[in-house]
Amino acid sequence: MALNVVIMAAGKGTRMKSALPKVLHRLGGTSLLQHVLNAAAGVGADRTVVVTGHGADEVETAVAASGAVFVRQMPQLGTGHAVQMAAPALDDAQAVTLILYGDVPLIRPDTVQALVQACAGEQLALLSFQPQDPARYGRIVRDARGGVQRIVEYKDATPEERAIREVYSGIMAAPTALLKRWVAALKNDNAQQEYYLTDVVAMAVAEGVPVQAQVVADEAEVAGINDALQLAELERVLQRRHAHALMEQGVRLADPARLDVRGTLRCGRDVQIDINAVFEGEVELGDDVQIGANCVLRNARIGAGTVVHPFSHIEGAVVGAGALIGPFARLRPGAELADEVHIGNFVEVKNSTMARGAKANHLAYLGDATVGERVNYGAGAITANYDGANKHRTVIGNDVHVGSNCVLIAPVTLGDGATIGGGSTIAKDAPAGQLTVARAKQATLAGWTRPTKKR
Amino acid sequence: MALNVVIMAAGKGTRMKSALPKVLHRLGGTSLLQHVLNAAAGVGADRTVVVTGHGADEVETAVAASGAVFVRQMPQLGTGHAVQMAAPALDDAQAVTLILYGDVPLIRPDTVQALVQACAGEQLALLSFQPQDPARYGRIVRDARGGVQRIVEYKDATPEERAIREVYSGIMAAPTALLKRWVAALKNDNAQQEYYLTDVVAMAVAEGVPVQAQVVADEAEVAGINDALQLAELERVLQRRHAHALMEQGVRLADPARLDVRGTLRCGRDVQIDINAVFEGEVELGDDVQIGANCVLRNARIGAGTVVHPFSHIEGAVVGAGALIGPFARLRPGAELADEVHIGNFVEVKNSTMARGAKANHLAYLGDATVGERVNYGAGAITANYDGANKHRTVIGNDVHVGSNCVLIAPVTLGDGATIGGGSTIAKDAPAGQLTVARAKQATLAGWTRPTKKR
Amino acid sequence: MALNVVIMAAGKGTRMKSALPKVLHRLGGTSLLQHVLNAAAGVGADRTVVVTGHGADEVETAVAASGAVFVRQMPQLGTGHAVQMAAPALDDAQAVTLILYGDVPLIRPDTVQALVQACAGEQLALLSFQPQDPARYGRIVRDARGGVQRIVEYKDATPEERAIREVYSGIMAAPTALLKRWVAALKNDNAQQEYYLTDVVAMAVAEGVPVQAQVVADEAEVAGINDALQLAELERVLQRRHAHALMEQGVRLADPARLDVRGTLRCGRDVQIDINAVFEGEVELGDDVQIGANCVLRNARIGAGTVVHPFSHIEGAVVGAGALIGPFARLRPGAELADEVHIGNFVEVKNSTMARGAKANHLAYLGDATVGERVNYGAGAITANYDGANKHRTVIGNDVHVGSNCVLIAPVTLGDGATIGGGSTIAKDAPAGQLTVARAKQATLAGWTRPTKKR
Repeated sequence: MALNVVIMAAGKGTRMKSALPKVLHRLGGTSLLQHVLNAAAGVGADRTVVVTGHGADEVETAVAASGAVFVRQMPQLGTGHAVQMAAPALDDAQAVTLILYGDVPLIRPDTVQALVQACAGEQLALLSFQPQDPARYGRIVRDARGGVQRIVEYKDATPEERAIREVYSGIMAAPTALLKRWVAALKNDNAQQEYYLTDVVAMAVAEGVPVQAQVVADEAEVAGINDALQLAELERVLQRRHAHALMEQGVRLADPARLDVRGTLRCGRDVQIDINAVFEGEVELGDDVQIGANCVLRNARIGAGTVVHPFSHIEGAVVGAGALIGPFARLRPGAELADEVHIGNFVEVKNSTMARGAKANHLAYLGDATVGERVNYGAGAITANYDGANKHRTVIGNDVHVGSNCVLIAPVTLGDGATIGGGSTIAKDAPAGQLTVARAKQATLAGWTRPTKKR
Repeated sequence: MALNVVIMAAGKGTRMKSALPKVLHRLGGTSLLQHVLNAAAGVGADRTVVVTGHGADEVETAVAASGAVFVRQMPQLGTGHAVQMAAPALDDAQAVTLILYGDVPLIRPDTVQALVQACAGEQLALLSFQPQDPARYGRIVRDARGGVQRIVEYKDATPEERAIREVYSGIMAAPTALLKRWVAALKNDNAQQEYYLTDVVAMAVAEGVPVQAQVVADEAEVAGINDALQLAELERVLQRRHAHALMEQGVRLADPARLDVRGTLRCGRDVQIDINAVFEGEVELGDDVQIGANCVLRNARIGAGTVVHPFSHIEGAVVGAGALIGPFARLRPGAELADEVHIGNFVEVKNSTMARGAKANHLAYLGDATVGERVNYGAGAITANYDGANKHRTVIGNDVHVGSNCVLIAPVTLGDGATIGGGSTIAKDAPAGQLTVARAKQATLAGWTRPTKKR
Repeated sequence: MALNVVIMAAGKGTRMKSALPKVLHRLGGTSLLQHVLNAAAGVGADRTVVVTGHGADEVETAVAASGAVFVRQMPQLGTGHAVQMAAPALDDAQAVTLILYGDVPLIRPDTVQALVQACAGEQLALLSFQPQDPARYGRIVRDARGGVQRIVEYKDATPEERAIREVYSGIMAAPTALLKRWVAALKNDNAQQEYYLTDVVAMAVAEGVPVQAQVVADEAEVAGINDALQLAELERVLQRRHAHALMEQGVRLADPARLDVRGTLRCGRDVQIDINAVFEGEVELGDDVQIGANCVLRNARIGAGTVVHPFSHIEGAVVGAGALIGPFARLRPGAELADEVHIGNFVEVKNSTMARGAKANHLAYLGDATVGERVNYGAGAITANYDGANKHRTVIGNDVHVGSNCVLIAPVTLGDGATIGGGSTIAKDAPAGQLTVARAKQATLAGWTRPTKKR
């Protein structure tokens, strides 16, 4: 079905108490508006029109990559007015126009797809739901055949109507040409002097256009966000969705209530994820990967069988298969670790490659380094990659042993099989296969006495 | 309304199975008794009398700063007996006496304020509630006008009375003079041979003193703590209160169920707090501060726009604006960081000032140091501030570069713009603007062979 | 009561979507099957027969230590068929045979004990429960006296029978001889052509053997695990059990919903455990121990009064009384710390003993070391315990001070009271009571200029 989508994104969101426009607040790491744009894309929108207003520049910049058309609604005179602003941008060639809301982020493509199909360019299709407490919402009054007769606001409703549990979500799919004509005819003769999109329902009924309502089972799909509480509630709904989807594919979660996915997490078979994992951006975990308690991974790829121990922080890194990472490991952007690499506690790796079987097990820093196979990079060893002005590379050949607390002053190369004595500061290349040290002579001072405690 | 408050704090709390007196157990980092003292202060108590008994010395010492009067109840012969002990300490000039309980910590000042006003020095005002399961509690029997007729214990209640859902919390506000007379007249002719404060209700009714009951909506306000389970339950109630209050002011919480505030947390606008944050003591977060996952902050002030990355532990520290902290940073007491300071992973700062733009990004220790602007404190660098007997200061001028794995043996001063070569141990002052090194000559040993694996 | 136990463990568990046989998935760190074996042992099973099938080799190897007898069911033709396979292995001398399921892990010994006693070698005793939604289960139809008349499958049930909430769990205790005869007579004339163990109920009724059903209150006891969701749900049930049991004995948990015990945790009096603690294997905490937020302890023993600060990772270690550990401490296997030892941030200890009062407070590594009393092991100090081929020991006498960033190249001994100057690499023994250093001369280079930023 050829489709326009209008997304309402002009509201201020005063109750968010934030300098950020409401629709740019993040849910699962993605802005509310982007969630709705994703839903529009997911339902195959041919043209998407975003109605902006408050913070329009910021909003339009934030989602510029979406390809949406922006129209501005200033001032904001109601939902009907918003669609009036959008109307010129709607493509008449698309039979259906779907109305979504930038602060209703968890709508599923399947749900709106069904609505669009129900509309079929000929009917007005509304999305309704049955909340636990329907008090605030307009009731859906159906006729004998189940078609929608009208929507009645709570304040205007009879006791019988108030007993109706089905209410309107604000989401609709309408024939484009009819919608344009209807919104052009909206009136604002109400207390707020606003143009209400809901009034098109009465117009449709008056014209004999069939109006139907589809009930969405999951209330979260039509839940709007107006304050930080609602944002936090929907964040948990979204995270439960992630957790369930992962478990359904066989991922073992130690506690589904303590998982946060802010982006996309792809998992192989027999992946195990312990408590409090946070995944951001694009993360990929191979078969049999184990993620320990309290790990943070952002934009990372972890190879099959690798074990990430607790308290590891991995960002912008690639780890091969059969590796051991952490606990207390920090992999920063540009860390590329081959299979069977070991990174131990209090070790930081940045913009460095480590070949198969290389190890840095204790309190060490590798920055801008190329590390060969089977290298043993000792405890406390540091690459001095920054001279205060420029970054330089350290090249460590295969089978090199770097002693404890060594400093490798880049640019420097350690040849294959070189051994660097513990405590050495290495400022010149070290030859392959040899022991290189830079070490002061050990001496014991006669007659020295320890300092004593001063008062 | 002039007000005495009596707080019952004599009980043993056997079911806590603890050596600590029950009322000194902590909820949100504050003792149960202190919570109640805070409520008394919040309602404007003119005189507060704490009735102690078990662990009286420990209890009285713990809350000595409150200014409360302590009376001892030994042995403990019931709630009425406790008020008998307190009676001589009550100030007759205060018209109302409010009875609170040291193990009922979540009572809100607003709630007791309303009770005190209802008493008005003339009526007996009881606080009631409607629990899901009222079984254990004494029912509030009201007369036709809604006044309290009597409180009936479950065991004495008729089936009709048992069906009453409103029960008595134990909290009351009474006219001081009447309360004194009533408790003096209490009898202990019951199975336990105890004096029950509840019996004053019958006395009031008998004398024609109006008795009213106010229903508290939030059951947690009148929930008592008798064991570790109830302590944990109320801890979560308190934490939900904190989370909701923060969100209502616009703070974004990744997961309200994973926040712990044990003290006072003040937040600016657009603060974001990720999962599992723990705040203890007095913590202040400026506008736009971001707190990453799994951070612990105690008695800290964080400036606007500063980002605290995951796994940071900050205690007794002040951080300026626009700073970057962590992940895996440890700021200890006396760390004072100016704007735009960067503290990276596995870095510890203690009792040190760092001026604007100073950086310590990797595996370093700064203790008892004064660090100038734009200093780059290299990976693995250490201030040797302790000679085994005394602590000494390290002074690092502006624009100093300290190389990797350097040791600065305090007391020592590095002049402005000094550069310290990597791997140097600096025991004497380094002049400004110059390169200072302490480095052994690098040498490669001919003929050396690696050790081989022994069996 | 002399007892055979049959445990069904042949199923594939396709919905787990795992290469691991279903009954080997872990709940609370222990395989599902091991939980059931523990229940069998807890009820005093004289002979336990495990029926294996899918992944039989792996399953039998995993629980070989249990002493169970294994019989194989290949192919799997239903629960009745499984018992047919087990029948020859049942000990006729045991009057009762109890049927348990390898994927129903949370059954309590007390529950099955009562069932075994009800059977008494003469009756058929079934375990029933009353789920919220009984739809899928076979209803228990009782006769006027409360005995079980029959079990009716949902599809065969009348509306009245469908209204019954009591359903059958699959668990039964039967007289051994009768059970053998009954299963031998089972027929597979049903749609699936399987032999159903449930059919023995009708046989018992037909023979006039009394059949009774005992209702288990806690549905989790009879909950089966078929997919990762159910595994995660029961994990939380198990963890709540752990949390409640700990709190009942007086342990204070900051948040019972954020505790994970995967093994056995023994606690003394007045133990406090902050959020997100993970305990694995055998862990023992002495009186007054405090475990900070986000700690992981595996196979560890912590002495009375010791404080473990947040972000500590302790495995295979013993810590004495009055010690301070962390934050960010890593104790690895073989770490044995005496009373009053202090381990600070970013410190790793492995296979080392530390005597009373020894301290390693900052960014240090102790591996294969023997550390004396009151030693101060400086910031950044490292034992170079590995020469690339072999591990060697470092021996540090009492009252030794090791300066910052020192490297101790093992094997090496520091005599009692020795002081090692900061930044020294020590490759030879250091005498007692003296200052030993290995330090290059500090020099300032004239005319050196800093590098400048390259484009």
